[in-house]
Amino acid sequence: MDNRPIGVFDSGLGGLTVVRELMHLLPRERIIYLGDTGRVPYGGRSRETILKYARQDINFLSTFDLKAIMIACGTVSTTALDTVRSEYALPIFGVAESAAKEAAEITKNNKIGLIGTTASIQSGAYERFIHQYNKEANIYGVACPLFVPLVENGRFQKGDPVIEIVAAEYLDPLKKRGIDTLVLGCTHYPLLDGVISGFMGRGVTLVSTGTQGARFLAEKLSQKDALAAENAEGSRHYYVTDSTENFSRLASIFLGCPVSGLVEQVSIESYDRPHLQK
Amino acid sequence: MDNRPIGVFDSGLGGLTVVRELMHLLPRERIIYLGDTGRVPYGGRSRETILKYARQDINFLSTFDLKAIMIACGTVSTTALDTVRSEYALPIFGVAESAAKEAAEITKNNKIGLIGTTASIQSGAYERFIHQYNKEANIYGVACPLFVPLVENGRFQKGDPVIEIVAAEYLDPLKKRGIDTLVLGCTHYPLLDGVISGFMGRGVTLVSTGTQGARFLAEKLSQKDALAAENAEGSRHYYVTDSTENFSRLASIFLGCPVSGLVEQVSIESYDRPHLQK
Repeated sequence: MDNRPIGVFDSGLGGLTVVRELMHLLPRERIIYLGDTGRVPYGGRSRETILKYARQDINFLSTFDLKAIMIACGTVSTTALDTVRSEYALPIFGVAESAAKEAAEITKNNKIGLIGTTASIQSGAYERFIHQYNKEANIYGVACPLFVPLVENGRFQKGDPVIEIVAAEYLDPLKKRGIDTLVLGCTHYPLLDGVISGFMGRGVTLVSTGTQGARFLAEKLSQKDALAAENAEGSRHYYVTDSTENFSRLASIFLGCPVSGLVEQVSIESYDRPHLQK
Repeated sequence: MDNRPIGVFDSGLGGLTVVRELMHLLPRERIIYLGDTGRVPYGGRSRETILKYARQDINFLSTFDLKAIMIACGTVSTTALDTVRSEYALPIFGVAESAAKEAAEITKNNKIGLIGTTASIQSGAYERFIHQYNKEANIYGVACPLFVPLVENGRFQKGDPVIEIVAAEYLDPLKKRGIDTLVLGCTHYPLLDGVISGFMGRGVTLVSTGTQGARFLAEKLSQKDALAAENAEGSRHYYVTDSTENFSRLASIFLGCPVSGLVEQVSIESYDRPHLQK
């Protein structure tokens, strides 16, 4: 039993799709969420910059007495997970790893598609994670740089011609490969579920990083007997790096419900040094 | 005569459309360009964050002995110009002001359309600038948050269905207003010239912040007898805040020619204090 909070971070608010799943699966946990809204998006930046930002995000979260950190950002979890894991004493998990495990296990024809940000696809991390669980799998990755801005501008509804055209362009090569499993490698993408499954058809199972990330974390905490007590009261505390002004509107889209919990702003560049280091 | 360099900055690389015009108009000037590629885009962020980033950008540029700074970013020049002007001794100009002046002077029916980032439109700065030169003008502003990511993903060609649909949605209300002048209030937009003029038709004159910004600066320097000497040799030195890796490919799109000049990376968060203050 461990009543300490779980830290969750993302480049912006997409990671709230992970929080949504955690609230559902582990309602008694205290969650401290950091969204780096002042520097979002990370997906088109260099590995060096993503790593610098990820370290600052972890340094900030580490100022709380946490039991674990969940990287709810597809880009960071593909680009920086191994490095930050070797640098911090705190247990750190990433959404990419958990989604990769699920995809590796459920594919029947060993043809797995993968969509994500440019940085995620270039990292090759999904291939490495998937092959840990399934050496036979063939993985086909496509970078989808327009999905994040389209989702953030509310263009994720089935039937919207813009998202339909862009999705068809990105997904057509994967459909032609005959994949039976598709990893949605970015925490913004669950909002595109309808559009993506509409295009890919029924024969393709979508694996969402949000859902898998939350399940993976629940499993790990349970194995270590580190879940919150049965009578503990769950809570959420949100931090953002830009103004808190527009947080609630966008956040509720990703959370799938109105925001409850405190929202505060943090000056992230000042967290240049680790609070807890290995 | 003043052979000191001109500082130019933008949230990213869109401001290179201003550099392109400066190279054409003032080929003997030395230009120091800063693109905040590690934190681009600014256009959806809060005024407070934009101002913080703008100050750091100016603090960095001020470490050079400059004769002037040109804010080649629609968002900063609408959101932060007045504030930074009151804080720094260096002459600071902005693309918004110069485009506003041109639009105010050329409109015949006093109906001026304005497109820009969300922050630019919300600032109301164009209205203020335009009314300084033309009190009768009616201004109709539309935020176009998808234009920057579409341009950066190469979707700016006439005939591309995605940019055509998005442009028609944004511009239709302006067309219905019967505007005769349209300010392209973001330095990414000159790449959309063909798409925008195709939709708006011949009766609407487009005013580009890049072209006007460069002309305005040339005029101001000439009035102060601060142009470089006739025999001076022009040069460009580029600084970016993310890795320099992909700079040349994207930069050449905005410059309209291959990049010549040094490219270096700078750690912008460390420029928290002004080098030269009023």
